[in-house]
Amino acid sequence: MLDLWFSESHADDAKFSIRVKEHLYSEKTPFQQIDFFKSETFGTFFTLDGYIMMTEKDEFIYHEMITHVPMAVNPEIKKVLIIGGGDGGTSREILRYKSIEKVDLVEIDERVVRLCQKYLTQTACKLDNDNRLTMHFEDGKEFVKRTKNGTYDLILVDSTDPIGPGEGLFTNEFYNDCQRILSDDGILINQHESPYYKDYCHEMKRAHSKIKDKFPISMVYQFHMPTYASGHWLFGFASKKYHPLNNLNADRWNSLGLKTKYYNTNLHKGAFALPNYVIEELEKTE
Amino acid sequence: MLDLWFSESHADDAKFSIRVKEHLYSEKTPFQQIDFFKSETFGTFFTLDGYIMMTEKDEFIYHEMITHVPMAVNPEIKKVLIIGGGDGGTSREILRYKSIEKVDLVEIDERVVRLCQKYLTQTACKLDNDNRLTMHFEDGKEFVKRTKNGTYDLILVDSTDPIGPGEGLFTNEFYNDCQRILSDDGILINQHESPYYKDYCHEMKRAHSKIKDKFPISMVYQFHMPTYASGHWLFGFASKKYHPLNNLNADRWNSLGLKTKYYNTNLHKGAFALPNYVIEELEKTE
Repeated sequence: MLDLWFSESHADDAKFSIRVKEHLYSEKTPFQQIDFFKSETFGTFFTLDGYIMMTEKDEFIYHEMITHVPMAVNPEIKKVLIIGGGDGGTSREILRYKSIEKVDLVEIDERVVRLCQKYLTQTACKLDNDNRLTMHFEDGKEFVKRTKNGTYDLILVDSTDPIGPGEGLFTNEFYNDCQRILSDDGILINQHESPYYKDYCHEMKRAHSKIKDKFPISMVYQFHMPTYASGHWLFGFASKKYHPLNNLNADRWNSLGLKTKYYNTNLHKGAFALPNYVIEELEKTE
Repeated sequence: MLDLWFSESHADDAKFSIRVKEHLYSEKTPFQQIDFFKSETFGTFFTLDGYIMMTEKDEFIYHEMITHVPMAVNPEIKKVLIIGGGDGGTSREILRYKSIEKVDLVEIDERVVRLCQKYLTQTACKLDNDNRLTMHFEDGKEFVKRTKNGTYDLILVDSTDPIGPGEGLFTNEFYNDCQRILSDDGILINQHESPYYKDYCHEMKRAHSKIKDKFPISMVYQFHMPTYASGHWLFGFASKKYHPLNNLNADRWNSLGLKTKYYNTNLHKGAFALPNYVIEELEKTE
């Protein structure tokens, strides 16, 4: 049997490896290196520039946590902008809400979408069969720059790490535009890196220090993501008006009857209770 | 430079690896294979039968979560039994409470203690300089069997996985003895494995189904442990009387002024809010 392993470095001297049953596809686009693999434990997974973006088996955690937290705080959200998210998982979750009227998905690399439509239909399933969704293949930074004030109720930054094509999505300019194009009810959720390993923690602090200056409410919440570095991952919740805990109406969200595998409204509250060392690192930027 | 990697399998086809600066020591005892390593990112760490038990850099998470959760629920705890815990980390944390009168540590393998006293003084520091602590080198299962009813206020099962010498600590007989030797105020905290990977999830369910039958209150709480499989780890909280949330008196614990790096009383509450799939797996045993 072929003994083939994919490895991702979490630090210079720590790595996570998955045995590969089949290297399904590999392509170098103008933006990044894309690879799809098949594995037993994680199902199909894909990587960008060698970093795991998602696996079939644990993607539900990330996609539920980026979506249902803001929707449970403000169920009146109607217009959504997704930056990145080419695998379609975030779109799939947000489009479960009948109340959503419009989703713009801005993915810099069309090849990610097209390849996920071929190899990862579990997440890409809704990308071409829900007419509330429009795909835009361009740089998210440019898209938000030319978008009118107050256009969206929710922005979900479902980006790669701040190296390579995702870099512009971790800048002051980008966050300023997000703030500007959100309605007064607006909420921004961003991929907020991880507190544990040094390099990730550094990016976590950089992102937080920029966002907290631009929104009256800026908090961070955590979840368990087995295939990401250290398994400890974060999203940022920034808002002009809504507090993620004080404005959570659990009964209202539960009355929607959405079945979820990770998210629930108790966990919603628990996810904002961070460990001391994470709070301290986040405060260092303040 | 020597390119030496330690690897631990998390599943047949998934593994975590740490680059080793030095393989400090190796010994096969009658109970298990013990190895100590030095690494850059995790400091010194040791393994039993090839599984990471603790690393200097993230041990604080495990040891704070096993200790401060029960102590914040019942600060009147005076008599503590630790089963396993040969590295000394759990003892170190519990002995920070001035109110603790007596700690019995029962470690089956004296060599674990002696080697941690040599290589891991960060955790082993309190094992020989606090006269409230007594070490017993024997099988925890036998120790609890001959212990009198109602002897302890708190039992902390700081064990290996239920393979090898830790196996007897996941049996009905052992949990029955724990129940019997706890006072009416008694709390049992046990190493409860992990929900994510199939084999760990199986052990999680087995442990839970046994404990919940013996205690009126039996709950599970989670934490982020970077060097354990999937990073998502659990402890069980079982009690005759105290509910881990309803009986938490946060102000009282905070008034003690203990400085912690992971634990805080908000996180205490959040840790019991489990993801749906974990709740469902735990309920399958019921």
